[in-house]
Amino acid sequence: MSTAISIFDTTLRDGTQGEGISLSADDKLKIAKKLDDLGVHYIEGGIPGSNSKDIEFFKRVQELGLQAKIVAFGSTRRKDSIAAQDVNLQRILESGAQAATLVGKSWDFHVHTALQTTLEENLSMIYDSIAFLKQGGMEVIFDAEHFFDGYKNNPEYAMAVMKKAEEAGADWLVMCDTNGGTLPHEIREIVTMLQSQITRSQLGIHTHNDCELAVANSLSAVQAGARQVQGTINGYGERCGNANLCSVIPNLQLKLGYDCLDIEKLNQLHNTARFVSEVANVNMPVNQPYVGNAAFAHKGGIHVSAILRDSRTYEHIAPELVGNKQRVLVSELAGQSNVVSKAQELGITLDPSSDEARGVISRIKELEHQGYQFEGADASLELLIREAGGEVKEMFSFESFKVLVEKTAGRPVVSEAFLKLNVAGTSVYTAAEGNGPVNALDNALRKALSQYFPALRDMHLADYKVRVLDEKDATAAKVRVLIESKNYEDVWSNVGVSENVIEASWEALLDSFRYALLEAPTPKNDQAELTHHGLVNH
Amino acid sequence: MSTAISIFDTTLRDGTQGEGISLSADDKLKIAKKLDDLGVHYIEGGIPGSNSKDIEFFKRVQELGLQAKIVAFGSTRRKDSIAAQDVNLQRILESGAQAATLVGKSWDFHVHTALQTTLEENLSMIYDSIAFLKQGGMEVIFDAEHFFDGYKNNPEYAMAVMKKAEEAGADWLVMCDTNGGTLPHEIREIVTMLQSQITRSQLGIHTHNDCELAVANSLSAVQAGARQVQGTINGYGERCGNANLCSVIPNLQLKLGYDCLDIEKLNQLHNTARFVSEVANVNMPVNQPYVGNAAFAHKGGIHVSAILRDSRTYEHIAPELVGNKQRVLVSELAGQSNVVSKAQELGITLDPSSDEARGVISRIKELEHQGYQFEGADASLELLIREAGGEVKEMFSFESFKVLVEKTAGRPVVSEAFLKLNVAGTSVYTAAEGNGPVNALDNALRKALSQYFPALRDMHLADYKVRVLDEKDATAAKVRVLIESKNYEDVWSNVGVSENVIEASWEALLDSFRYALLEAPTPKNDQAELTHHGLVNH
Repeated sequence: MSTAISIFDTTLRDGTQGEGISLSADDKLKIAKKLDDLGVHYIEGGIPGSNSKDIEFFKRVQELGLQAKIVAFGSTRRKDSIAAQDVNLQRILESGAQAATLVGKSWDFHVHTALQTTLEENLSMIYDSIAFLKQGGMEVIFDAEHFFDGYKNNPEYAMAVMKKAEEAGADWLVMCDTNGGTLPHEIREIVTMLQSQITRSQLGIHTHNDCELAVANSLSAVQAGARQVQGTINGYGERCGNANLCSVIPNLQLKLGYDCLDIEKLNQLHNTARFVSEVANVNMPVNQPYVGNAAFAHKGGIHVSAILRDSRTYEHIAPELVGNKQRVLVSELAGQSNVVSKAQELGITLDPSSDEARGVISRIKELEHQGYQFEGADASLELLIREAGGEVKEMFSFESFKVLVEKTAGRPVVSEAFLKLNVAGTSVYTAAEGNGPVNALDNALRKALSQYFPALRDMHLADYKVRVLDEKDATAAKVRVLIESKNYEDVWSNVGVSENVIEASWEALLDSFRYALLEAPTPKNDQAELTHHGLVNH
Repeated sequence: MSTAISIFDTTLRDGTQGEGISLSADDKLKIAKKLDDLGVHYIEGGIPGSNSKDIEFFKRVQELGLQAKIVAFGSTRRKDSIAAQDVNLQRILESGAQAATLVGKSWDFHVHTALQTTLEENLSMIYDSIAFLKQGGMEVIFDAEHFFDGYKNNPEYAMAVMKKAEEAGADWLVMCDTNGGTLPHEIREIVTMLQSQITRSQLGIHTHNDCELAVANSLSAVQAGARQVQGTINGYGERCGNANLCSVIPNLQLKLGYDCLDIEKLNQLHNTARFVSEVANVNMPVNQPYVGNAAFAHKGGIHVSAILRDSRTYEHIAPELVGNKQRVLVSELAGQSNVVSKAQELGITLDPSSDEARGVISRIKELEHQGYQFEGADASLELLIREAGGEVKEMFSFESFKVLVEKTAGRPVVSEAFLKLNVAGTSVYTAAEGNGPVNALDNALRKALSQYFPALRDMHLADYKVRVLDEKDATAAKVRVLIESKNYEDVWSNVGVSENVIEASWEALLDSFRYALLEAPTPKNDQAELTHHGLVNH
């Protein structure tokens, strides 16, 4: 049996059913391009019968000249009607897509309850619709909705549905676990059974993650004979999502030896996952398998000293295979080997026995004791390590700020910040408003600096987190603020700690700007090397 | 073979290895109590040999009188030493825990590379350490690190390790997929093999999610004979996390018929998952299987009309079984019965069809839509319900505040609040300093009111939490503040939401004082019933 697996991406169709996921036609085109670069075989773009956005997508995607087959999605014809007169089927034919996914019922309960028609009419709907699109010259993928629930309830009928679809000429029979409630051993048994009955069509699998088993179920189906896997990037999709292709693909390819993507393209997986999450405007979970930022991150001291000897001790694959990388998290649980290897990662040689190394390690320990946490604040850690090596040239110095928040009953709150900096020997005094006090400070800082450093205009804050450290002290407790910043090329994170939420935020904010300016050219009216009055040291 | 499965929770130990997860001793005690209410069988609390926080946990957890067995974690003795003289093993014995998890090597490669000792010495380390703790009267759970990788590399040695542990008297032999790289079919084969060789000890499974297969691997092991499952709430843990007990438990219990929790406790799963995520201050993914907010959410259209006919059409289980609920994203149907039963709890009869009931329900829905959450803010909910019944007599009204935060380089930050209230017809203008802006407001409010309401002197804030709601908007995002207040008799919680952290804190603060004054006598110079200008309505 062939080991070639067709990867069918439905991020643009089933993925957009996920809560909080919404893609414009432009977004869809960008993602389609990226998926094609990755080398997936099928890209399901949407439902041409449903809205103008999808019709636009199918028109414009043809101009991109992609390698992947573009797929249009729709249902079998309406009950008691004629396929050739079905508007949705006509739209699929007219979409310009090379292939069509047709979804039909295979669970007798659904035929009665949802379609409210007879089992016989449902078979005709399936046959007619597939035959119509095949006559139109399309490749047809039949998605048998609720196939596993259907098989468990009425195996004869579920098999009859598949045989009817095969008879109508479907190229692919895809078994859908629509409700996501089926277990891997059931998938294995049922796919094996179907495999023994079908001769012409190929089999595919489409799973959902309601039992946290979508990936396992996809593997199970492939091991039992399925040769197409439908899923989405990052597992986006309705309820708990679809099978996550970012896990399915490396599992099949690296662990089980199937051919999914060109092997030299697999290392674009991490990059693709990030890109799609950016376009969809959804945060990627740090702990996402294979492609998450923490997927190859090591925290414990013993683990770190072992991976420094041999990374296979605590890594199931080499992270580079999927385009990810090893990260060493610095935390109180770990020791000096973490800091040294972090420096190495930054291209700085730090002799563990040197004064610099001992200095920065004891500084980090002291800060961690005060409540700082560097595992989520790589840029703050990098600043500390580079400072220890005398590598940081301060581009400006802080003099003072005032923040004023005013609220009068029945009126909106007003937040203002007044900020004094010294940039290149010149005193800069700025004021700005904001949605809140931290936003006002952010605005003032950007305003003050971007006249000297135009590149800062491309930088923006992407994430802001507040954690109260010792909650028992309530409003007098210390807070830790984490800020994530971005520009076109990079993402970096900084931390600040104080009993005062404004001061903690300011500290993280200031360091995020300092980090952004690490490689900046010195501004013109430079008169002297400036000293940075870090808030960390007050 | 018995269908009873021991649920071993390691949220407090392995869970804290996850990036961004950090728990104080207090947090750990709260979570232990909650896990015990859920009915897990083992609660692994930490590493008594590693730090004072964990030693404190083991001391204080004994005072809670939990049903679950408390477990202390540690490694086998150091190489070339004596178990009885091993400080970490002594600390485990002294911890007061009933059971110990001992982790040992079963992969020959790790014995050479990480431990840097002989295969023979590793066997002795395992034997000695287990025997030492058994002699000390503890139940011993042997966690065989990298068992599956070890078995694949050198099956004889991996088996020798397990036999040695059994011989030393280990009650449980737990097979760990430490790197998370093993597939379900491999788990099945290897567990079956071990099961055939072991007679006295029982088998357990401990998996990691690096291939997005931790849940599937746990099921596979149980189906092959394992009778203990180790995992964490919400799957927290190193890299991609541990097996998620919130998915493992319902899969085993509802789908495969194993006995895990008392069946009447399974519906606390959703609530437990939320609680742990709140204490850990980590957002729960909406699409988390079984317990996520979107796990049973249905977007408009065909799915909704089908589930209104019969929810089995698109739901693999009844959501109530795990304490979750169906959500229809277009038309909000839930909530009303909750509010009515909450009112009942407060001794207020609320006729669901009355204008008051409809009013308060639509108000709560509107506030929830804005980001309020009343699950952790009972006092705010009570104020809303009592307001709807016209039961709240406002003791003071808010006029205005100004908050000023000033920072000059090299000097400590200064926070001041200026507050104007009207109490009993008299304008009260106060100023106060604080550690931070919210503390200054808290001090000003207490100062202004306690001259009229001396009972407020006994009240203090016990807990303060900040949650950024839409992190992508960074410093312009909405924040939700939760404040817990206390006096000698009572504990209550309030919520505030705003784009401005000061305003959100103020709102929660103000309501916590309003709640404290619900039963207070009207102050002496009362002239007229006062109106409260709630910040909620601005």
